Amino acid sequence: MLSKLFAKRIKTQNPSRLQGLFPESNFSDNISFGGGCPDESLFPSQALQAAYQKAVDQEQAHSFQYHDVKGPGTLRDYLASRARQQGIKANADDILLTAGGQQGLDLVAKLFLGAGDEMAVEAPSYVGALSAFDNYEPVYHEIPLEDDGVNLDYFEEVLKEHPAIKLFYTVPDFHNPTGITISLAKRQRLVDLANRYDFVILEDTPYRDLRYHGESLPSIKSFDTEGRVIFLSSFSKILSPAFRLGWLVASPEIKEQLVNLKLSADLEVPYLAAGTVAAYLADNDLDQHIDQLKQVYRVKLDAMAKALKTYLPADAKISQPEGGFFFWVELDDEIDTRQLLLNEAVPKEHLIYVPSASFYPNWDKNNGLRVNFTGSSLSQIDEGAERLGRILSPAQTASGSTSPALASARSMKELSA
Amino acid sequence: MLSKLFAKRIKTQNPSRLQGLFPESNFSDNISFGGGCPDESLFPSQALQAAYQKAVDQEQAHSFQYHDVKGPGTLRDYLASRARQQGIKANADDILLTAGGQQGLDLVAKLFLGAGDEMAVEAPSYVGALSAFDNYEPVYHEIPLEDDGVNLDYFEEVLKEHPAIKLFYTVPDFHNPTGITISLAKRQRLVDLANRYDFVILEDTPYRDLRYHGESLPSIKSFDTEGRVIFLSSFSKILSPAFRLGWLVASPEIKEQLVNLKLSADLEVPYLAAGTVAAYLADNDLDQHIDQLKQVYRVKLDAMAKALKTYLPADAKISQPEGGFFFWVELDDEIDTRQLLLNEAVPKEHLIYVPSASFYPNWDKNNGLRVNFTGSSLSQIDEGAERLGRILSPAQTASGSTSPALASARSMKELSA
Repeated sequence: MLSKLFAKRIKTQNPSRLQGLFPESNFSDNISFGGGCPDESLFPSQALQAAYQKAVDQEQAHSFQYHDVKGPGTLRDYLASRARQQGIKANADDILLTAGGQQGLDLVAKLFLGAGDEMAVEAPSYVGALSAFDNYEPVYHEIPLEDDGVNLDYFEEVLKEHPAIKLFYTVPDFHNPTGITISLAKRQRLVDLANRYDFVILEDTPYRDLRYHGESLPSIKSFDTEGRVIFLSSFSKILSPAFRLGWLVASPEIKEQLVNLKLSADLEVPYLAAGTVAAYLADNDLDQHIDQLKQVYRVKLDAMAKALKTYLPADAKISQPEGGFFFWVELDDEIDTRQLLLNEAVPKEHLIYVPSASFYPNWDKNNGLRVNFTGSSLSQIDEGAERLGRILSPAQTASGSTSPALASARSMKELSA
Repeated sequence: MLSKLFAKRIKTQNPSRLQGLFPESNFSDNISFGGGCPDESLFPSQALQAAYQKAVDQEQAHSFQYHDVKGPGTLRDYLASRARQQGIKANADDILLTAGGQQGLDLVAKLFLGAGDEMAVEAPSYVGALSAFDNYEPVYHEIPLEDDGVNLDYFEEVLKEHPAIKLFYTVPDFHNPTGITISLAKRQRLVDLANRYDFVILEDTPYRDLRYHGESLPSIKSFDTEGRVIFLSSFSKILSPAFRLGWLVASPEIKEQLVNLKLSADLEVPYLAAGTVAAYLADNDLDQHIDQLKQVYRVKLDAMAKALKTYLPADAKISQPEGGFFFWVELDDEIDTRQLLLNEAVPKEHLIYVPSASFYPNWDKNNGLRVNFTGSSLSQIDEGAERLGRILSPAQTASGSTSPALASARSMKELSA
């Protein structure tokens, strides 16, 4: 009844892209390849507890007061120095702390996008980014991916035809959901395109430091000549998601507006989170911690690669990520991974993955799925891939009739992301 | 240069409503009546540190993982029970935790307001709320205030003329900035108007528990018959702003959409903040803590009332709040409190207040100002009011010519909120 008062941006008929991405299942033998959860056993819990204590001891009662919208200076100093090590010109003033990378996506969308404004996205694209962008009602242009990243010849044709495109969103390192990394040459050409066709690049890098094989590439931002690249990152995957701390590096003109938008969104990041992380970084070597993560995740990535190859049908196209959190699987055109999730995977195999539709602006590609490998144990990886293989076996995918109860809108929201 | 790519909502010519509201001044004898800061000495620092420890001990490594978007169940149970004690029908499922009350304002605006959508606000209104609403480009209808709250006869005439009004925003208890409290009869009539003219009420109550004189009144939400009232509150003023924790109570249809918007804004509140507050509430009596705040703030309120009466010009109209954080002062029509802030208050008297223009949708009322009394000591209250009196003395206000350096756009942003 009240829904008629909602703003036009609210599409009540669409399922949420994000609800259910981290579902709490009731099955005791549940295996979730769904959300991008880090391995809990790797959180440096004791060091973080000590850091909280230190943060409060340093500031005393003032810890619990309001602070600066941009976040603690010591933390921004650290992040600027980290950015400079990667060839990005930045000082503490160019950094804005955000409520996780997710808020960076929302604020940048709020700054650039209004109803009908044109933007380009990789297809597929990170579900959380689309979820943030959707609310500002942009017109999406979908740019397909190749093995070395976004197809730039295609993109340039789109730019010629649609010169009003003002924003391009990319996850260049271990792309979410496909795991693809953009080549060096394409990174440089992207900046060139942005300069020539007058658009801004949002470079989203939550997985950038998590490379398990091969050599790291310079960030797109490091080639930025006109302040057109916004570099976004997060502590969620390399330290802990429970602080909800991300950061972005942007040129002054852009950062100034993002600060205003951050103020009107939530005033500031919680000092008790930012101060704790700042204290942790003062007393611990983050890169050493990341090396530990990489050792464990490298083994998991290799295990998932092997298990998917072993159990999935021979014609399944499986990505070959060198880092990050995800594999991407493409299947026969007739297969609907959303229906399979609801009718087979969850009720029969107690397995969760994210079906491909959520990763497309128009929810129109149903034959793919994303699996996470960092949040599961090695035995869960093997067992889960075997279950996935059973679900995707020709007999199953042919027989998959829709169960009305499970395919209800509510179940879709709870289960399908 | 890149500003031409910004969305239409971005008004680069307007100063930020919020930047500089909590300025760090370089003057050692600075007195700030600006932001709504609690008295730091009243934070239960030790109990909150113990609570953090307990929250992490309870969940172990899982503390540092992703959690439920709605916030911890124990905390929502507590808040639902607190709401029921106030006559609001609510259970844990009706509660959504937000990043401070500020995010509640942003999410509700995002749910209801698009460009050109009509809403009604009290005039003046909370600067942070206007700052959030501005981004969704509503058409504002300003409803004047009387001593017992918003003028409902006037409001009803506006509703007759503008039946498309879909949202009304109010701070019914110790209104920000005026300190006014809406009478019982008007609270009931507001719900009646909402039902008859088909709009939603956003009831913002960060100061509701902080009454220092007189008797508490039922919330507007407690009279809600059609799920049209969204009750919003916050731990910022009654516990600590540094956790950035607020909450709202809404009917299922509304709450469901707000959950989706929360997900796409920042996924969830930081568990390390919400879990800490939940653990604090399990081991401590919040109402007892609030009683301690009230004892101290009552003395400060009385001191500020006396000091303003003593030092301000006889024709200044000073509000008489019975609770909350603020006094409101209205002056001669010719006085421009923004110019006085920049030319007199900050450079000469080292005093900060918030000029009235920020509290009006169109920045068009310049003869008022807001002073906070909770964040200053008793001697600062007296000294600051004396400085304010000097600034507002007829000789000063007549001579106040504009200093070009200080009146630059940059200074406006830094100093004037």
